[in-house]
Amino acid sequence: MFEAVLSNGVVLKKIVESIKELVTEVNLEITSDGLSIQAMDSSHIALIVLILKASEFEEFQCDRPQNLGISITYLNKLLKIAGNDDSIKLKSESDSGILTLTFQGPNNEKICEFNLNLLTLDAEHLGIPEQEYSAEVKMSSLEFTKICRELTQVTDTLNISIDKEAIKFAVSGNVGAGCITMRGNVSDKVEENLFIRVNGNVNMAFSLRYLNLFNKAAMLSEEVVLFLSPEVPIVIQFVFDLGELKYFLAPKVADDN
Amino acid sequence: MFEAVLSNGVVLKKIVESIKELVTEVNLEITSDGLSIQAMDSSHIALIVLILKASEFEEFQCDRPQNLGISITYLNKLLKIAGNDDSIKLKSESDSGILTLTFQGPNNEKICEFNLNLLTLDAEHLGIPEQEYSAEVKMSSLEFTKICRELTQVTDTLNISIDKEAIKFAVSGNVGAGCITMRGNVSDKVEENLFIRVNGNVNMAFSLRYLNLFNKAAMLSEEVVLFLSPEVPIVIQFVFDLGELKYFLAPKVADDN
Amino acid sequence: MFEAVLSNGVVLKKIVESIKELVTEVNLEITSDGLSIQAMDSSHIALIVLILKASEFEEFQCDRPQNLGISITYLNKLLKIAGNDDSIKLKSESDSGILTLTFQGPNNEKICEFNLNLLTLDAEHLGIPEQEYSAEVKMSSLEFTKICRELTQVTDTLNISIDKEAIKFAVSGNVGAGCITMRGNVSDKVEENLFIRVNGNVNMAFSLRYLNLFNKAAMLSEEVVLFLSPEVPIVIQFVFDLGELKYFLAPKVADDN
Repeated sequence: MFEAVLSNGVVLKKIVESIKELVTEVNLEITSDGLSIQAMDSSHIALIVLILKASEFEEFQCDRPQNLGISITYLNKLLKIAGNDDSIKLKSESDSGILTLTFQGPNNEKICEFNLNLLTLDAEHLGIPEQEYSAEVKMSSLEFTKICRELTQVTDTLNISIDKEAIKFAVSGNVGAGCITMRGNVSDKVEENLFIRVNGNVNMAFSLRYLNLFNKAAMLSEEVVLFLSPEVPIVIQFVFDLGELKYFLAPKVADDN
Repeated sequence: MFEAVLSNGVVLKKIVESIKELVTEVNLEITSDGLSIQAMDSSHIALIVLILKASEFEEFQCDRPQNLGISITYLNKLLKIAGNDDSIKLKSESDSGILTLTFQGPNNEKICEFNLNLLTLDAEHLGIPEQEYSAEVKMSSLEFTKICRELTQVTDTLNISIDKEAIKFAVSGNVGAGCITMRGNVSDKVEENLFIRVNGNVNMAFSLRYLNLFNKAAMLSEEVVLFLSPEVPIVIQFVFDLGELKYFLAPKVADDN
Repeated sequence: MFEAVLSNGVVLKKIVESIKELVTEVNLEITSDGLSIQAMDSSHIALIVLILKASEFEEFQCDRPQNLGISITYLNKLLKIAGNDDSIKLKSESDSGILTLTFQGPNNEKICEFNLNLLTLDAEHLGIPEQEYSAEVKMSSLEFTKICRELTQVTDTLNISIDKEAIKFAVSGNVGAGCITMRGNVSDKVEENLFIRVNGNVNMAFSLRYLNLFNKAAMLSEEVVLFLSPEVPIVIQFVFDLGELKYFLAPKVADDN
């Protein structure tokens, strides 16, 4: 048996909205610690890791560790029915083959209850090694989103280079070539804040198409943290009250262009 | 001769907007009592009945009962030229073959005058029998619109069941199955109000595609009234200052699924 | 060498946005007086004349008259990267083959620098004769935009006739026929102001498709000035702090319908 209640249901809507274009079917891994997802995108280039902490739900019960296979596409359709102010309850009786979603608004006169059929999916939990990264950058998720979206005008390959003082986002295409440079900055305004920690300089290339997909999660958190090391996938991390959503993306090598 | 002036012209824009996807050519039936339309949609599944009362126009003259055949598609294009604050005058001289529309804004320096060619259409006025309905539900038109639109995510067939205490909107499809339950409620806020009158319980199925088309009329009225009886078309009624717009829709039978 | 700085960079974004659907490659003609463009649209029906005055830039240096051939399509993509509050610097070293754009926000921590490859284009500067026009009309650019857009519902050919007291915009198509009449008016509100100067009445027809394209420049100026003489292209002029943008459009002759 699994049952969880989230008074701020809109977070769940945003999470599913953030991953629905990358994965269509996933296992919800449920333990008494919380709910997590680990899934490769369909082209096996990006990895999504979602962790929601049991302690941050209003209620969370799980009698034994279990995997619930769900269609993200269908779950997203059902969650669209939930209002932004609704609480959301997730419930699955053992061996029922069903996840029941209950949406309830602040006005108790309206109750929505939907059943989602569970799927049987291969469980392939990857062990992701803990890693020291050469560089870590924390910045406004809105600013990072704007930069990635705007540079897509020029080409799909984004070069990110980081040294102690600045992070550079460079592109080069038929349209022209150029770069956006941002210096480390401490400000009261989240959108102007930029924190850089560097052990070794990095200079790596990534697909803007994927970064733009990841940036849908900017609605979950005002800040994004980038972790980079040479020849290792970049980690794009969004932290929020309920937990965190991380994307791993392999760098492009020169031949990819 | 027919002439009518509407100071609040935007209502006419909204009415035509509400029916333009269901009917393309209709007869305006004009008497000294007012202006009415009765038309089946092109697939003969839904019936539209519009009644505008002469007494609610700023001016209304009609020397004899007459039918003016018009293209709703073209009328809609011309009405788009009218501003939301414009008054609208409709005028048709006898046997002129033309309906003249005059739009005038609060600023008198701008006058728009357009002629719409009249069509000769078959006049087929249906006698709609007065009927006692088993159930009547009055609720927020916005809430009803949201429910229909959201449940379209799941399937096209909406099951509506009503008893003394609640109205249930149920759907079932590949995505999953579920229902939205709303209890009768008296509130100061229109969007939370729900009035139920029941002589006999009903449980009927309808096409969400049509209900979504009807709900365009929610811009005419904050409230919608549903009238239901077993095996009889549902009536969706929107009442507003100038008159009322009613849609009749035959229920789906089990085989329709 | 050419270098110019515009603190209010959004004006440049709007200018390029206003012409990008009419021309794809143009010569920027640069002298110590300023920057200008003169270009026919691809179908050779409309002429665009842009004049930006050196004195209105924050900085403007030009060591000798020169033409910089640029792709408007690519320039537009790069300008989309600039924020609305950014200053824009344009710089081109002699014989570098490159125009460098630097965008800088009010927050100095972020700098964007892009290089646009220059093109070699035929320079064909037309001598446009100074002309006395029969009629001149100054009106709200927003109102003119609305009229053109709305009448497009009816047909593509707009008839403009002007006499001492009023300007009439008339259309005729399958949908119907009609006209919008606006009288000369002096008002404190720009959107109600209408100034008419007439030496001889005019009555001419133009393509609404082109007028709608020109009207993108309404974002540059609250007012538009129309200059008309029989059998001569209409001039649609938008004046703003930095200079002016004029469109010339040949009238339609009866056979064009």
